[in-house]
Amino acid sequence: MRVLLVDADTERAALVSAGLRAAGYEVVALAPDAADLTRRVRESGAEVIVCDLDDPGRDALESMRALNRDEPRPVVLFAERGEPEQIEAALEAGVAAYVVEGLAPTRVRPVIEVAIRRFRAHHAMRQELEQTRATLAARTIIDRAKARLMERGRLSEEEAYRRLRRSAMDQGRRMVDVAQTILDKS
Amino acid sequence: MRVLLVDADTERAALVSAGLRAAGYEVVALAPDAADLTRRVRESGAEVIVCDLDDPGRDALESMRALNRDEPRPVVLFAERGEPEQIEAALEAGVAAYVVEGLAPTRVRPVIEVAIRRFRAHHAMRQELEQTRATLAARTIIDRAKARLMERGRLSEEEAYRRLRRSAMDQGRRMVDVAQTILDKS
Repeated sequence: MRVLLVDADTERAALVSAGLRAAGYEVVALAPDAADLTRRVRESGAEVIVCDLDDPGRDALESMRALNRDEPRPVVLFAERGEPEQIEAALEAGVAAYVVEGLAPTRVRPVIEVAIRRFRAHHAMRQELEQTRATLAARTIIDRAKARLMERGRLSEEEAYRRLRRSAMDQGRRMVDVAQTILDKS
Repeated sequence: MRVLLVDADTERAALVSAGLRAAGYEVVALAPDAADLTRRVRESGAEVIVCDLDDPGRDALESMRALNRDEPRPVVLFAERGEPEQIEAALEAGVAAYVVEGLAPTRVRPVIEVAIRRFRAHHAMRQELEQTRATLAARTIIDRAKARLMERGRLSEEEAYRRLRRSAMDQGRRMVDVAQTILDKS
């Protein structure tokens, strides 16, 4: 498993790197701060991000939020401080594990394992939510277009549906796009 | 915040209880194992569950899964072992924090804070998913009934919708139930 390690303290970073390697991880990149996580992940091919930040600030969280949106990966955040608002903001930014009071090398592996699994479960649920929402939105558009066809052409629902589907196939477009065009035109 | 503490080891339980109280929590119930969590939570009015289990087994996870379904609460699980399959099963059972290698009293508070926030975020997302799914299912039924009315009565979509809505209001039922009755009858 390829790890991007973020740590401002070079001495601590060396220790943590050694701990990660001993635990079977490959540290493929090291960054002094959490800026530009998305680019760093793309360049290094990191699969997990381990951040050792004393006090995760707004910029760090913003960078994690962008990563979570553009190139989602499990992020493990070890922090010295853990104010409720900070924790909340970090979770909202997609952090898979928020561990307060530093990084004990012996605890790294299980923490990363939990984070990876939590990330996957959360990611799957979010995708399901997005998929369901998209289905609902497409359904609304298709049903409106179908009703429009039924009213105009005195078609049955079945006929309207077939007409929509045939248009989509003929034009090589998705039904929802054909339906949107029908609504736009009328 | 009212805590239900699960710990098989009475000596350790006393220590952890003291640590929880020192961190500002009220320990409202103590259980020697994770059986019957739902009943215990209902009886004690616990808002958070802290489980200190050396090796969370199938029965414990099953009890957590039932709790998560029937009386969802943040569950913090401190375990000695953390095999990937165990972690995965625990997260799947709704555990909000899985902490490997025991319980350090100083770390209890931030762990619980993270768990509560993670639980809330997860819970909100799950509710949104369920809501979206229910909306989608209701929409399917309403739209089919509407189309049925349009075909039968040569109604416009608008008229069919109004008729459905009026029936629902007159009968004091939800539109989806009226729609289902229309489909059942035809």
